[in-house]
Amino acid sequence: MKLRPDEIVQLFLAVAALLGVGRALGELARKLGQPSVLGEMLAGIVLGPTVLGYFAPEAMLYLFPATGSVPIALDALTTVAISLFLLVAGMEVDLSTMFRQGRVAVGVGVGSTLLPFALGFGVFYFGAAGGGSTGTGTLIFALFMATALSISALPVIAKTLLDLGMYRSDIGMLIVAVAIFNDLVGWIVFALVLSLMGGGHGHRFDVGETVTLTLGFAAIMLTIGRWFINAILPWLQAHLSWPGGVLGFALTITLAGAAFTEWIGVHAIFGAFLVGVALGDSQHLRERTRTTIDQFVSFVFAPLFFASIGLRVDFVADFDWMLVSVIFVLACAGKIIGSGVAARLLGMPARQSWAVGFGLNARGAMEIILGLLALDAGLIDKRMFVALVVMALGTSMLAGPVMLRLLQRKKSRRFTALVGAGSFIPEMRATDRFKAILELVPVSGARGVDLAAASDAVIERERVIPTGLGNGIALPHARIKGLAAPQIAMGISKQGIDFDSPDGEPAHIICIILTPQEDQTTALELYRDILTTFKDKDFREKVLRVKSYTELLALLASGTGPRPGEATVAPAAH
Amino acid sequence: MKLRPDEIVQLFLAVAALLGVGRALGELARKLGQPSVLGEMLAGIVLGPTVLGYFAPEAMLYLFPATGSVPIALDALTTVAISLFLLVAGMEVDLSTMFRQGRVAVGVGVGSTLLPFALGFGVFYFGAAGGGSTGTGTLIFALFMATALSISALPVIAKTLLDLGMYRSDIGMLIVAVAIFNDLVGWIVFALVLSLMGGGHGHRFDVGETVTLTLGFAAIMLTIGRWFINAILPWLQAHLSWPGGVLGFALTITLAGAAFTEWIGVHAIFGAFLVGVALGDSQHLRERTRTTIDQFVSFVFAPLFFASIGLRVDFVADFDWMLVSVIFVLACAGKIIGSGVAARLLGMPARQSWAVGFGLNARGAMEIILGLLALDAGLIDKRMFVALVVMALGTSMLAGPVMLRLLQRKKSRRFTALVGAGSFIPEMRATDRFKAILELVPVSGARGVDLAAASDAVIERERVIPTGLGNGIALPHARIKGLAAPQIAMGISKQGIDFDSPDGEPAHIICIILTPQEDQTTALELYRDILTTFKDKDFREKVLRVKSYTELLALLASGTGPRPGEATVAPAAH
Repeated sequence: MKLRPDEIVQLFLAVAALLGVGRALGELARKLGQPSVLGEMLAGIVLGPTVLGYFAPEAMLYLFPATGSVPIALDALTTVAISLFLLVAGMEVDLSTMFRQGRVAVGVGVGSTLLPFALGFGVFYFGAAGGGSTGTGTLIFALFMATALSISALPVIAKTLLDLGMYRSDIGMLIVAVAIFNDLVGWIVFALVLSLMGGGHGHRFDVGETVTLTLGFAAIMLTIGRWFINAILPWLQAHLSWPGGVLGFALTITLAGAAFTEWIGVHAIFGAFLVGVALGDSQHLRERTRTTIDQFVSFVFAPLFFASIGLRVDFVADFDWMLVSVIFVLACAGKIIGSGVAARLLGMPARQSWAVGFGLNARGAMEIILGLLALDAGLIDKRMFVALVVMALGTSMLAGPVMLRLLQRKKSRRFTALVGAGSFIPEMRATDRFKAILELVPVSGARGVDLAAASDAVIERERVIPTGLGNGIALPHARIKGLAAPQIAMGISKQGIDFDSPDGEPAHIICIILTPQEDQTTALELYRDILTTFKDKDFREKVLRVKSYTELLALLASGTGPRPGEATVAPAAH
Repeated sequence: MKLRPDEIVQLFLAVAALLGVGRALGELARKLGQPSVLGEMLAGIVLGPTVLGYFAPEAMLYLFPATGSVPIALDALTTVAISLFLLVAGMEVDLSTMFRQGRVAVGVGVGSTLLPFALGFGVFYFGAAGGGSTGTGTLIFALFMATALSISALPVIAKTLLDLGMYRSDIGMLIVAVAIFNDLVGWIVFALVLSLMGGGHGHRFDVGETVTLTLGFAAIMLTIGRWFINAILPWLQAHLSWPGGVLGFALTITLAGAAFTEWIGVHAIFGAFLVGVALGDSQHLRERTRTTIDQFVSFVFAPLFFASIGLRVDFVADFDWMLVSVIFVLACAGKIIGSGVAARLLGMPARQSWAVGFGLNARGAMEIILGLLALDAGLIDKRMFVALVVMALGTSMLAGPVMLRLLQRKKSRRFTALVGAGSFIPEMRATDRFKAILELVPVSGARGVDLAAASDAVIERERVIPTGLGNGIALPHARIKGLAAPQIAMGISKQGIDFDSPDGEPAHIICIILTPQEDQTTALELYRDILTTFKDKDFREKVLRVKSYTELLALLASGTGPRPGEATVAPAAH
């Protein structure tokens, strides 16, 4: 059975649309400080029944036909995509981080799992029982809802902490450890819920067998499997091509593990997740293998999968305000109170305790995947699925801002955020430091202040303390009365300007930093950021070759410049 | 339409088997100095009708069912895989390399294309005409065979030249430039052959329209498309997440280009190839984007695709000795004579000219893909396909050894090939240099010689000229009478041993090099290789932490060691 040419056209167009629009909206979400999964799902909503299907139903049906080979092919691709996404999620579960955090992590972990679980189970079991139904169906449904409310999304939490510069702090590592605990327990409980559904959808085993096989597989992967992978990785890295050998190995065992859990009646992604945990835990797994898998999965497979969700559900028709609100309140209450109270009882200060609660409250992509599987299994309906998605996105968007406020921290300032197209001069004309200041201050974008006075202030300070810091960098600076926000103007001087630096070298990279009179800390933060950014000699040489603001941004983002003149062919393995 | 759970199990097992066995046999082929595509195809032969289907037909039909959703899903995956493979192949087509080689490249390019094309067309058109059939079918068949005989496989040629250490030599760059020319012309001609088949399989356009659209698309991609991609890449790199933004963009336009060429009635991979050419030619495409795509495609998608070929053809039943021989001889004669004579006429020395011919003779993966498309289109039968595959693999395996012999070059010696598990001591006990020599020489694996005399010879030389070379490296050496081949013993001394080095530092990495009495060059080659390998200070420190031979190999292969004690969670984008 092969795809016909017209089906290949449809399939490729469909994948291109999901990937292209998914990445584009994902990037947009990122720019706005939101999780990229938000934008990726939005792409599916735009391309699916909610928008495109509403305005141009034929176009939607051409791209995403409901029958024939194309939907089967798309389903296969997204099933592989989601399994690889869970592989990466599993690889991030670092068991040793969890164990190192010890008593407090376990305490908060239990609190942050038990309360939402109890709350969810209570509401949905007795709520439904109050409606008269108390059969196995209700029990399984209540168990699922309890699980759905009690998970946390490690990836989105790790990303939020990184953005806030709190990843390596004590509270950051605690939150990560608890999230790992939550993730691991959540997936195992969910697998059990699936296995309780009459031995899974395949009915190959009875409930008892499926539960035993599920727990047995998890136990084996976390012990013998973990040990085996750690033992075989050095051999693979020594004898196979690098990094292709390990890459092939990792994907092969992931697919095999996924096939096994699907076979016992749980979902394929559970096996992929556990293989990921075992693989990611190995100290022999190299950073490069990790990032190659991570990049391809996060930027290609994940957008494809999340965009495809929007195709299946109409987020307008199935949006139920009441249900959305109830789920959202239940989720936040259970998680924040459960985690926060546990942290308080274990002796953490109040603000920190609630910050931990809001951090763990982020549900992110994991909740969406859980919901989708439940929808597929017939456990929940589309209205409940939409409510879970909204809750997942809402809690994720809330986590960062609330934690910042509770901990009274500011996002650490990046000088790149302050340099715009207008405040960058790729080729400065000035030949001495005072002219350089006069050339740069006017483009700094400082509004509401007298630019001449600002230039004078910078020059005055430069006379007293020259700001050449060595390595070809000079950072003239002044605090300006009446300035509302920090401003930077950056200039590059190919021939170099003498800023009286300790190493006697002329400055090639000059950043003027203007900060408000009353702000005593930002300038130092920016100093440190600029010096760190340009600490590498090769990198500074690339900066000097930059010809425009776009090239500067590209260089700062990727760490490498355009290829030098002589182009070469990159040979591959075939 | 969704896959059933049992179909997901089958699909995942099938992909795991193709990928796992494909990678394993691909690695084996590589170890034996053969192209990995050979091993990857062998995996399909083992899993398909030729072997598994012969011995255990039920197992084969379970893994690879002939009907239902699984074959559709597998076909979709392999179609995407082959398109991405052509994207990478296209990215290696560096137009500027081609243009730089100028007159000679064009001359050899024309010779190496025209003669095999004319030969192929003559034999198959008039051969068939002799049999009485002279219709359009014969014309198209003859045109295809002419094209199939005249292509070269850039990737396998680049790989062979790299292995021989000739990639950057004049003759190497000439061969690469001609191969690029061949590749580009070959694919465009093949696309034309496909479009001649009554306007492609879709019959959407007539022949004239399809030909026009094909040439038009190629012309646009190589001019405006190339310019546009080069212009937009810096913006993407500046404003999107790195490297995910570019990755998503590259795959989206590849799929869109592939959909377009499939739509006009040529095959999808032609569009993917042209997008790859336009993309790879941009000086703004960063090395990291290139390698991330290349690794995932070469080590995951390519094995999947090439292994899947073996599933479709029985390489024993359809092996026709006569046809295989004719195709092989025709292919070699046309290509080697065409390229060689052109090179001679353009003034190259005889041996070099024939080396160019044998280099360009390698057909590799490209021929196999071309053959498969022709098989699918009904242009050739399975017997002819098998003959083309054998020719592709045979010519690829021949290229390296014959070029070595013609150019009287030797593969440059790598010291890693000479250090075995038995000749490596991770923790030396010796405390002075003479004891170190006595500790290492016995494990060097030198056979047929008196080890005591060999130790004495090394010690004698060490007394005259101390071999501490600084940077913690010492390379004691002697030429030994009666020794058949060079031998190395490597030891690591954590505390360091004084080898009287110019920088006064003790040696931590000690390699004893024993070479045959009459061999005057190998020792120097090995010196240079060892010093280059350990030139980096951080890397040398990692070497000192190595605890076994396997860890040493892994470190040498990947450039990085196991993670240090404190493990961390790698955060992803979700």
